[in-house]
Amino acid sequence: MALNFPNKKTRITTTTERQIKQKSSSKTTNMAKANLGMDLEELINESNEYYLNNDFAVIHKKPTPVQIVKVEYPMRSKAVITEAYYKTPSTTDYNGIYKGRYIDFEAKENHNKTSFPLANIHPHQISHLEKIIKHGGIGFLIVYWSVYNEYYLLPFPVCKEYWDNSLKDGRKSIPYEVFKERAYLIKEGYLPRLNFLKTVDEVFLK
Amino acid sequence: MALNFPNKKTRITTTTERQIKQKSSSKTTNMAKANLGMDLEELINESNEYYLNNDFAVIHKKPTPVQIVKVEYPMRSKAVITEAYYKTPSTTDYNGIYKGRYIDFEAKENHNKTSFPLANIHPHQISHLEKIIKHGGIGFLIVYWSVYNEYYLLPFPVCKEYWDNSLKDGRKSIPYEVFKERAYLIKEGYLPRLNFLKTVDEVFLK
Repeated sequence: MALNFPNKKTRITTTTERQIKQKSSSKTTNMAKANLGMDLEELINESNEYYLNNDFAVIHKKPTPVQIVKVEYPMRSKAVITEAYYKTPSTTDYNGIYKGRYIDFEAKENHNKTSFPLANIHPHQISHLEKIIKHGGIGFLIVYWSVYNEYYLLPFPVCKEYWDNSLKDGRKSIPYEVFKERAYLIKEGYLPRLNFLKTVDEVFLK
Repeated sequence: MALNFPNKKTRITTTTERQIKQKSSSKTTNMAKANLGMDLEELINESNEYYLNNDFAVIHKKPTPVQIVKVEYPMRSKAVITEAYYKTPSTTDYNGIYKGRYIDFEAKENHNKTSFPLANIHPHQISHLEKIIKHGGIGFLIVYWSVYNEYYLLPFPVCKEYWDNSLKDGRKSIPYEVFKERAYLIKEGYLPRLNFLKTVDEVFLK
């Protein structure tokens, strides 16, 4: 059974967004593509589609927030947004429900060899995940190390520990060794390609 | 303490989106404004902002999904989206976490006197809420009756019952009496203006 995107539009959008990402950081995105054939966002969307279709979980990527400035209404055709700008998201990219629990995470690609720069994370994403956990939700990061083609589930507390240290003039990145020791490797499979909920089971629901 | 929107951009966007809504249905939105001074979406966003700032819940409106077709990169300025289209959302507008529970709802304004037309609801919103409840989440609709200036929390099962009947050539709307009998009036207050979580407590968490 092939996994299809829910509709063509979604696929188009995803592609467009990847192209935009490539414009901003073509090198890195291409490295990811070289390793994987699709970028992290597509891979997670595909897995979420599988989870949804098979009734495992309901997890969706939030739409990219844009500030709409100008909309035109051509005769006999749908509204066209002719001026809009990307906005900084106020939350993480993904949330939903799994086994009755609220689940919330951010996905990041890392193309360094030795460490994951905390500059990849926005402060509002840290405070959002902090609130989620305080309210009883499951919160984490999925970090893709393109150099090793490894996917890790990084529990939020580990991320927060390094984040707080970085604010006290500590190091500004999380070493690869820390991922090896304190994060959880997400195994790649066939269906879904990135079965991160299996890792969620092991880390949070045992 | 005045309730402020998280940042100016958000406020601008909300306004823009209301203006767009007004373009498509100026009469109805104006009726709502006449009754209330702000539309349902603004009112709920304001309440969510209050809940967030006071650590009651973490509930966000999902960004309006747009299909981005063309992006330009002017010299020395940020990317400008110059062609994009509104997409049909695949979920409801609002979700988050409250008292450890996943919460998910759709908000609708109704400007009729006697019934709430089911045409206001998209099929994918019904199937989404159905999945949410199946997975243990709290799902409902908030329906604003502008003629009576009344806000109701409509439990999903009641909505689903009428939805299913409408597919079997039953009536295509939910009568006002049914809201009186089987939905829950959300009282307007001062902070937050629309304290729907109080109603959620009474309906789902007692």
